[in-house]
Amino acid sequence: MKKIITIARQYGSGGREIGRKLAEAYGIPFYDNEIISRAAKETGFAEAAFKNVEDKATNSLLYSIAMGMNVFSHQEIGFTGLSLDDRIFLAQSNVIRKVAEEGPCIIVGKCADYILKDRENVINLFISASVDFRINRSIQIDSLPEKKAAEIVLKKDKSRANYYKYHSGERWDNVLNYDMAIRSDLCGIDGTVECIKAYLDKI
Amino acid sequence: MKKIITIARQYGSGGREIGRKLAEAYGIPFYDNEIISRAAKETGFAEAAFKNVEDKATNSLLYSIAMGMNVFSHQEIGFTGLSLDDRIFLAQSNVIRKVAEEGPCIIVGKCADYILKDRENVINLFISASVDFRINRSIQIDSLPEKKAAEIVLKKDKSRANYYKYHSGERWDNVLNYDMAIRSDLCGIDGTVECIKAYLDKI
Repeated sequence: MKKIITIARQYGSGGREIGRKLAEAYGIPFYDNEIISRAAKETGFAEAAFKNVEDKATNSLLYSIAMGMNVFSHQEIGFTGLSLDDRIFLAQSNVIRKVAEEGPCIIVGKCADYILKDRENVINLFISASVDFRINRSIQIDSLPEKKAAEIVLKKDKSRANYYKYHSGERWDNVLNYDMAIRSDLCGIDGTVECIKAYLDKI
Repeated sequence: MKKIITIARQYGSGGREIGRKLAEAYGIPFYDNEIISRAAKETGFAEAAFKNVEDKATNSLLYSIAMGMNVFSHQEIGFTGLSLDDRIFLAQSNVIRKVAEEGPCIIVGKCADYILKDRENVINLFISASVDFRINRSIQIDSLPEKKAAEIVLKKDKSRANYYKYHSGERWDNVLNYDMAIRSDLCGIDGTVECIKAYLDKI
Protein backbone atom coordinates (compact mmCIF):
# COMPACT_ATOMS: atom_id res chain seq x y z
CA MET A 1 0.00 0.00 0.00
CA LYS A 2 1.92 3.01 -1.32
CA LYS A 3 -0.63 5.71 -0.55
CA ILE A 4 -0.93 8.60 1.84
CA ILE A 5 -4.24 8.17 3.66
CA THR A 6 -6.04 11.12 5.21
CA ILE A 7 -8.90 10.50 7.62
CA ALA A 8 -11.59 13.06 8.42
CA ARG A 9 -13.99 11.81 11.09
CA GLN A 10 -16.92 12.71 13.26
CA TYR A 11 -16.10 12.96 16.95
CA GLY A 12 -16.63 9.58 18.61
CA SER A 13 -16.77 7.65 15.32
CA GLY A 14 -13.51 5.83 16.06
CA GLY A 15 -11.75 7.40 13.07
CA ARG A 16 -8.54 7.86 15.02
CA GLU A 17 -8.48 4.22 16.21
CA ILE A 18 -9.31 3.05 12.67
CA GLY A 19 -6.38 5.10 11.39
CA ARG A 20 -4.03 3.67 14.00
CA LYS A 21 -5.08 0.11 13.13
CA LEU A 22 -4.64 0.74 9.40
CA ALA A 23 -1.16 2.16 10.06
CA GLU A 24 -0.27 -0.95 12.08
CA ALA A 25 -1.68 -3.24 9.38
CA TYR A 26 0.43 -1.56 6.67
CA GLY A 27 3.44 -0.81 8.87
CA ILE A 28 3.41 2.89 7.99
CA PRO A 29 3.62 6.00 10.21
CA PHE A 30 0.50 7.31 11.94
CA TYR A 31 0.06 11.03 12.54
CA ASP A 32 -2.85 12.14 14.66
CA ASN A 33 -4.01 15.53 15.83
CA GLU A 34 -1.76 15.57 18.86
CA ILE A 35 1.43 14.66 17.01
CA ILE A 36 0.78 17.25 14.31
CA SER A 37 -0.15 19.96 16.80
CA ARG A 38 2.94 19.27 18.89
CA ALA A 39 5.24 19.38 15.86
CA ALA A 40 3.47 22.46 14.52
CA LYS A 41 3.74 24.25 17.86
CA GLU A 42 7.50 23.84 17.72
CA THR A 43 7.64 25.23 14.21
CA GLY A 44 4.96 27.88 14.57
CA PHE A 45 7.29 30.07 16.55
CA ALA A 46 10.51 30.19 14.67
CA GLU A 47 12.49 31.97 17.41
CA ALA A 48 11.59 29.32 20.00
CA ALA A 49 12.35 26.60 17.49
CA PHE A 50 15.87 27.89 17.16
CA LYS A 51 16.65 27.97 20.86
CA ASN A 52 18.72 24.92 21.86
CA VAL A 53 18.93 24.03 18.22
CA GLU A 54 21.24 21.09 18.88
CA ASP A 55 18.54 19.43 21.01
CA LYS A 56 15.92 20.15 18.36
CA ALA A 57 18.26 18.78 15.72
CA THR A 58 18.14 15.36 17.39
CA ASN A 59 14.55 15.23 16.11
CA SER A 60 15.12 15.42 12.37
CA LEU A 61 11.45 15.95 11.58
CA LEU A 62 10.96 18.89 13.95
CA TYR A 63 14.30 20.38 13.01
CA SER A 64 13.76 20.24 9.26
CA ILE A 65 10.27 21.62 9.66
CA ALA A 66 11.53 24.40 11.90
CA MET A 67 14.04 25.27 9.19
CA GLY A 68 11.36 24.99 6.51
CA MET A 69 8.94 27.05 8.50
CA ASN A 70 11.51 29.72 9.09
CA VAL A 71 12.19 30.14 5.37
CA PHE A 72 8.54 29.69 4.41
CA SER A 73 7.28 32.09 7.03
CA HIS A 74 9.58 35.07 6.73
CA GLN A 75 10.21 35.08 3.01
CA GLU A 76 7.10 33.74 1.37
CA ILE A 77 4.00 35.05 3.11
CA GLY A 78 5.04 37.42 5.82
CA PHE A 79 4.28 34.90 8.51
CA THR A 80 4.56 37.46 11.30
CA GLY A 81 1.53 39.42 10.02
CA LEU A 82 -0.86 36.44 10.46
CA SER A 83 -3.21 35.63 13.34
CA LEU A 84 -2.12 32.98 15.82
CA ASP A 85 -4.72 30.54 14.39
CA ASP A 86 -3.46 31.08 10.87
CA ARG A 87 0.15 30.73 11.98
CA ILE A 88 -0.68 27.46 13.70
CA PHE A 89 -2.59 26.24 10.63
CA LEU A 90 0.36 27.09 8.38
CA ALA A 91 2.72 25.31 10.74
CA GLN A 92 0.44 22.24 10.79
CA SER A 93 0.15 22.36 7.00
CA ASN A 94 3.91 22.38 6.78
CA VAL A 95 4.12 19.34 9.06
CA ILE A 96 1.51 17.53 6.96
CA ARG A 97 3.27 18.32 3.66
CA LYS A 98 6.56 17.26 5.20
CA VAL A 99 5.38 13.88 6.48
CA ALA A 100 3.57 13.25 3.17
CA GLU A 101 6.88 13.96 1.41
CA GLU A 102 8.51 11.21 3.47
CA GLY A 103 6.21 8.49 2.05
CA PRO A 104 3.09 6.44 2.78
CA CYS A 105 1.43 7.30 6.10
CA ILE A 106 -1.92 7.88 7.79
CA ILE A 107 -2.86 11.43 8.78
CA VAL A 108 -5.94 12.08 10.93
CA GLY A 109 -7.79 15.39 10.87
CA LYS A 110 -6.40 18.91 10.37
CA CYS A 111 -7.81 19.38 6.82
CA ALA A 112 -5.08 17.02 5.56
CA ASP A 113 -7.18 16.11 2.49
CA TYR A 114 -7.36 19.79 1.55
CA ILE A 115 -3.71 20.51 2.35
CA LEU A 116 -2.61 17.59 0.12
CA LYS A 117 -5.25 18.07 -2.59
CA ASP A 118 -2.74 18.76 -5.36
CA ARG A 119 -0.66 15.70 -4.50
CA GLU A 120 -0.95 12.31 -6.21
CA ASN A 121 -1.33 9.01 -4.36
CA VAL A 122 -3.47 10.50 -1.62
CA ILE A 123 -6.62 8.64 -0.54
CA ASN A 124 -9.14 10.61 1.51
CA LEU A 125 -11.42 8.79 3.95
CA PHE A 126 -14.35 10.05 6.01
CA ILE A 127 -15.57 8.10 9.05
CA SER A 128 -19.02 8.75 10.49
CA ALA A 129 -21.28 6.93 12.96
CA SER A 130 -24.70 7.26 14.54
CA VAL A 131 -25.04 9.86 17.31
CA ASP A 132 -25.80 7.10 19.86
CA PHE A 133 -22.68 5.15 18.92
CA ARG A 134 -20.56 8.29 19.23
CA ILE A 135 -22.07 9.29 22.56
CA ASN A 136 -21.49 5.80 23.98
CA ARG A 137 -17.90 5.79 22.71
CA SER A 138 -17.10 9.12 24.29
CA ILE A 139 -18.68 7.95 27.57
CA GLN A 140 -16.48 4.82 27.53
CA ILE A 141 -13.25 6.23 26.11
CA ASP A 142 -13.20 9.79 27.44
CA SER A 143 -15.23 8.64 30.50
CA LEU A 144 -17.64 11.57 30.19
CA PRO A 145 -21.07 11.71 31.91
CA GLU A 146 -23.87 10.93 29.40
CA LYS A 147 -25.30 14.45 29.22
CA LYS A 148 -21.87 16.01 28.75
CA ALA A 149 -20.99 13.41 26.09
CA ALA A 150 -24.13 14.21 24.05
CA GLU A 151 -23.34 17.92 24.26
CA ILE A 152 -19.71 17.45 23.20
CA VAL A 153 -20.52 15.13 20.29
CA LEU A 154 -22.77 17.74 18.66
CA LYS A 155 -20.46 20.63 19.50
CA LYS A 156 -17.35 18.92 18.10
CA ASP A 157 -19.06 18.11 14.79
CA LYS A 158 -19.91 21.76 14.37
CA SER A 159 -16.42 22.96 15.25
CA ARG A 160 -14.75 20.44 12.90
CA ALA A 161 -17.02 21.59 10.07
CA ASN A 162 -16.28 25.23 10.87
CA TYR A 163 -12.53 24.62 11.10
CA TYR A 164 -12.54 22.95 7.69
CA LYS A 165 -14.70 25.65 6.14
CA TYR A 166 -12.57 28.45 7.57
CA HIS A 167 -9.28 27.05 6.32
CA SER A 168 -10.32 25.37 3.05
CA GLY A 169 -13.39 27.37 1.99
CA GLU A 170 -14.99 23.95 1.29
CA ARG A 171 -17.65 21.92 3.09
CA TRP A 172 -16.24 19.23 5.39
CA ASP A 173 -19.28 17.04 4.76
CA ASN A 174 -19.06 17.14 0.96
CA VAL A 175 -19.08 13.48 -0.11
CA LEU A 176 -17.09 14.43 -3.21
CA ASN A 177 -14.06 15.37 -1.06
CA TYR A 178 -13.59 11.72 -0.17
CA ASP A 179 -12.57 8.54 -2.00
CA MET A 180 -14.38 6.45 0.58
CA ALA A 181 -16.77 7.37 3.37
CA ILE A 182 -18.03 4.74 5.77
CA ARG A 183 -20.17 4.49 8.89
CA SER A 184 -18.21 2.71 11.60
CA ASP A 185 -21.14 1.75 13.82
CA LEU A 186 -22.74 -0.74 11.43
CA CYS A 187 -19.90 -3.26 11.42
CA GLY A 188 -17.77 -1.99 14.32
CA ILE A 189 -14.24 -0.56 14.39
CA ASP A 190 -12.47 -3.77 13.30
CA GLY A 191 -15.08 -4.52 10.63
CA THR A 192 -14.66 -1.00 9.28
CA VAL A 193 -10.87 -1.40 9.21
CA GLU A 194 -11.32 -4.61 7.18
CA CYS A 195 -13.66 -2.87 4.71
CA ILE A 196 -11.24 0.01 4.21
CA LYS A 197 -8.35 -2.44 3.80
CA ALA A 198 -10.34 -4.38 1.20
CA TYR A 199 -10.68 -1.12 -0.73
CA LEU A 200 -7.08 0.07 -0.30
CA ASP A 201 -5.71 -3.35 -1.28
CA LYS A 202 -7.50 -3.07 -4.64
CA ILE A 203 -6.18 0.39 -5.50
CA MET B 1 -28.40 -9.77 3.11
CA LYS B 2 -31.75 -8.59 4.44
CA LYS B 3 -31.40 -4.90 3.65
CA ILE B 4 -32.95 -2.45 1.25
CA ILE B 5 -30.07 -0.76 -0.58
CA THR B 6 -30.48 2.67 -2.14
CA ILE B 7 -27.84 3.93 -4.55
CA ALA B 8 -27.29 7.60 -5.37
CA ARG B 9 -24.62 8.08 -8.03
CA GLN B 10 -22.86 10.58 -10.21
CA TYR B 11 -23.65 10.25 -13.90
CA GLY B 12 -21.14 7.90 -15.55
CA SER B 13 -19.85 6.49 -12.23
CA GLY B 14 -21.30 3.06 -12.96
CA GLY B 15 -23.67 3.22 -9.97
CA ARG B 16 -26.46 1.58 -11.94
CA GLU B 17 -24.27 -1.32 -13.09
CA ILE B 18 -22.90 -1.71 -9.56
CA GLY B 19 -26.48 -1.89 -8.27
CA ARG B 20 -27.42 -4.49 -10.88
CA LYS B 21 -24.41 -6.64 -9.98
CA LEU B 22 -25.18 -6.39 -6.26
CA ALA B 23 -28.78 -7.42 -6.93
CA GLU B 24 -27.55 -10.43 -8.93
CA ALA B 25 -25.04 -11.35 -6.21
CA TYR B 26 -27.73 -11.32 -3.52
CA GLY B 27 -30.57 -12.60 -5.72
CA ILE B 28 -32.82 -9.64 -4.86
CA PRO B 29 -34.90 -7.35 -7.12
CA PHE B 30 -33.24 -4.41 -8.84
CA TYR B 31 -35.20 -1.20 -9.47
CA ASP B 32 -33.57 1.45 -11.59
CA ASN B 33 -34.75 4.83 -12.78
CA GLU B 34 -36.53 3.45 -15.82
CA ILE B 35 -38.47 0.78 -13.94
CA ILE B 36 -39.55 3.23 -11.25
CA SER B 37 -40.47 5.92 -13.77
CA ARG B 38 -42.50 3.50 -15.86
CA ALA B 39 -44.37 2.14 -12.85
CA ALA B 40 -44.93 5.65 -11.53
CA LYS B 41 -46.20 6.89 -14.86
CA GLU B 42 -48.92 4.26 -14.80
CA THR B 43 -49.90 5.21 -11.27
CA GLY B 44 -49.42 8.96 -11.55
CA PHE B 45 -52.58 9.30 -13.58
CA ALA B 46 -55.21 7.37 -11.73
CA GLU B 47 -57.85 7.61 -14.45
CA ALA B 48 -55.55 6.13 -17.09
CA ALA B 49 -54.43 3.48 -14.66
CA PHE B 50 -57.97 2.26 -14.35
CA LYS B 51 -58.62 1.86 -18.06
CA ASN B 52 -58.29 -1.81 -19.09
CA VAL B 53 -57.86 -2.67 -15.46
CA GLU B 54 -57.81 -6.41 -16.20
CA ASP B 55 -54.70 -5.92 -18.35
CA LYS B 56 -53.10 -3.81 -15.65
CA ALA B 57 -54.00 -6.41 -13.09
CA THR B 58 -51.71 -8.89 -14.84
CA ASN B 59 -48.86 -6.77 -13.43
CA SER B 60 -49.50 -7.10 -9.71
CA LEU B 61 -46.96 -4.43 -8.81
CA LEU B 62 -48.39 -1.80 -11.15
CA TYR B 63 -51.92 -2.74 -10.29
CA SER B 64 -51.51 -2.60 -6.52
CA ILE B 65 -49.64 0.67 -6.80
CA ALA B 66 -52.30 2.07 -9.10
CA MET B 67 -54.87 1.17 -6.46
CA GLY B 68 -52.68 2.59 -3.72
CA MET B 69 -52.01 5.73 -5.68
CA ASN B 70 -55.68 6.25 -6.32
CA VAL B 71 -56.51 6.13 -2.61
CA PHE B 72 -53.37 8.02 -1.61
CA SER B 73 -53.79 10.73 -4.19
CA HIS B 74 -57.42 11.65 -4.01
CA GLN B 75 -58.04 11.26 -0.29
CA GLU B 76 -54.78 12.16 1.42
CA ILE B 77 -53.16 15.08 -0.35
CA GLY B 78 -55.44 16.30 -3.07
CA PHE B 79 -53.24 14.82 -5.74
CA THR B 80 -55.05 16.66 -8.52
CA GLY B 81 -53.94 20.06 -7.17
CA LEU B 82 -50.22 19.28 -7.60
CA SER B 83 -47.84 20.12 -10.47
CA LEU B 84 -47.02 17.35 -12.93
CA ASP B 85 -43.48 17.08 -11.50
CA ASP B 86 -44.81 16.73 -7.97
CA ARG B 87 -47.42 14.20 -9.07
CA ILE B 88 -44.74 12.13 -10.77
CA PHE B 89 -42.49 12.39 -7.68
CA LEU B 90 -45.35 11.25 -5.44
CA ALA B 91 -46.08 8.38 -7.78
CA GLN B 92 -42.39 7.38 -7.80
CA SER B 93 -42.26 7.68 -4.01
CA ASN B 94 -45.22 5.37 -3.79
CA VAL B 95 -43.51 2.84 -6.04
CA ILE B 96 -40.35 3.04 -3.92
CA ARG B 97 -42.23 2.60 -0.63
CA LYS B 98 -44.17 -0.27 -2.15
CA VAL B 99 -41.14 -2.22 -3.42
CA ALA B 100 -39.34 -1.56 -0.09
CA GLU B 101 -42.39 -3.03 1.65
CA GLU B 102 -41.98 -6.22 -0.40
CA GLY B 103 -38.50 -6.95 1.05
CA PRO B 104 -34.77 -6.65 0.32
CA CYS B 105 -33.98 -4.94 -3.00
CA ILE B 106 -31.71 -2.45 -4.71
CA ILE B 107 -33.15 0.93 -5.70
CA VAL B 108 -31.11 3.32 -7.87
CA GLY B 109 -31.70 7.07 -7.83
CA LYS B 110 -34.97 8.98 -7.34
CA CYS B 111 -34.17 10.24 -3.79
CA ALA B 112 -34.87 6.72 -2.53
CA ASP B 113 -32.67 7.31 0.54
CA TYR B 114 -34.78 10.33 1.47
CA ILE B 115 -38.11 8.64 0.67
CA LEU B 116 -37.18 5.68 2.91
CA LYS B 117 -35.40 7.70 5.62
CA ASP B 118 -37.81 6.71 8.39
CA ARG B 119 -37.58 3.00 7.55
CA GLU B 120 -35.26 0.53 9.28
CA ASN B 121 -32.91 -1.84 7.45
CA VAL B 122 -32.13 0.63 4.69
CA ILE B 123 -28.50 1.10 3.63
CA ASN B 124 -27.73 4.19 1.56
CA LEU B 125 -24.81 4.15 -0.87
CA PHE B 126 -23.27 6.93 -2.95
CA ILE B 127 -21.10 6.14 -5.98
CA SER B 128 -18.78 8.78 -7.41
CA ALA B 129 -15.88 8.72 -9.89
CA SER B 130 -13.38 11.10 -11.47
CA VAL B 131 -14.71 13.32 -14.25
CA ASP B 132 -12.39 11.62 -16.79
CA PHE B 133 -13.65 8.15 -15.84
CA ARG B 134 -17.26 9.31 -16.17
CA ILE B 135 -16.67 11.02 -19.50
CA ASN B 136 -14.97 7.90 -20.88
CA ARG B 137 -17.78 5.70 -19.62
CA SER B 138 -20.47 7.81 -21.21
CA ILE B 139 -18.49 7.86 -24.50
CA GLN B 140 -18.31 4.04 -24.45
CA ILE B 141 -21.72 3.16 -23.01
CA ASP B 142 -23.94 5.93 -24.38
CA SER B 143 -21.62 6.25 -27.44
CA LEU B 144 -21.54 10.03 -27.14
CA PRO B 145 -18.92 12.24 -28.85
CA GLU B 146 -16.25 13.37 -26.34
CA LYS B 147 -17.28 17.03 -26.19
CA LYS B 148 -20.95 16.15 -25.74
CA ALA B 149 -20.05 13.59 -23.06
CA ALA B 150 -18.09 16.14 -21.03
CA GLU B 151 -20.99 18.57 -21.25
CA ILE B 152 -23.57 15.98 -20.19
CA VAL B 153 -21.50 14.66 -17.26
CA LEU B 154 -21.34 18.11 -15.64
CA LYS B 155 -24.94 18.97 -16.49
CA LYS B 156 -26.34 15.71 -15.09
CA ASP B 157 -24.50 16.14 -11.77
CA LYS B 158 -26.08 19.54 -11.37
CA SER B 159 -29.56 18.35 -12.26
CA ARG B 160 -29.35 15.33 -9.89
CA ALA B 161 -28.27 17.64 -7.07
CA ASN B 162 -31.10 20.06 -7.90
CA TYR B 163 -33.67 17.27 -8.15
CA TYR B 164 -32.65 15.96 -4.72
CA LYS B 165 -32.62 19.44 -3.16
CA TYR B 166 -36.02 20.32 -4.64
CA HIS B 167 -37.77 17.20 -3.37
CA SER B 168 -35.92 16.54 -0.09
CA GLY B 169 -34.75 20.00 0.96
CA GLU B 170 -31.39 18.31 1.68
CA ARG B 171 -28.03 18.34 -0.10
CA TRP B 172 -27.47 15.35 -2.40
CA ASP B 173 -23.72 15.49 -1.75
CA ASN B 174 -23.96 15.45 2.06
CA VAL B 175 -21.69 12.59 3.14
CA LEU B 176 -23.85 12.12 6.26
CA ASN B 177 -26.80 11.00 4.10
CA TYR B 178 -24.92 7.82 3.23
CA ASP B 179 -23.76 4.70 5.08
CA MET B 180 -21.04 4.15 2.51
CA ALA B 181 -19.72 6.33 -0.29
CA ILE B 182 -17.10 5.04 -2.67
CA ARG B 183 -15.26 6.15 -5.78
CA SER B 184 -15.70 3.51 -8.49
CA ASP B 185 -12.78 4.55 -10.71
CA LEU B 186 -10.00 3.59 -8.30
CA CYS B 187 -10.68 -0.14 -8.27
CA GLY B 188 -13.14 -0.46 -11.17
CA ILE B 189 -16.78 -1.51 -11.25
CA ASP B 190 -16.21 -5.13 -10.15
CA GLY B 191 -13.71 -4.09 -7.48
CA THR B 192 -16.19 -1.58 -6.15
CA VAL B 193 -18.94 -4.23 -6.07
CA GLU B 194 -16.61 -6.47 -4.02
CA CYS B 195 -15.84 -3.63 -1.56
CA ILE B 196 -19.53 -2.86 -1.08
CA LYS B 197 -20.30 -6.58 -0.64
CA ALA B 198 -17.52 -6.87 1.95
CA TYR B 199 -19.28 -4.08 3.87
CA LEU B 200 -22.86 -5.35 3.44
CA ASP B 201 -21.82 -8.88 4.44
CA LYS B 202 -20.59 -7.55 7.81
CA ILE B 203 -23.76 -5.62 8.65
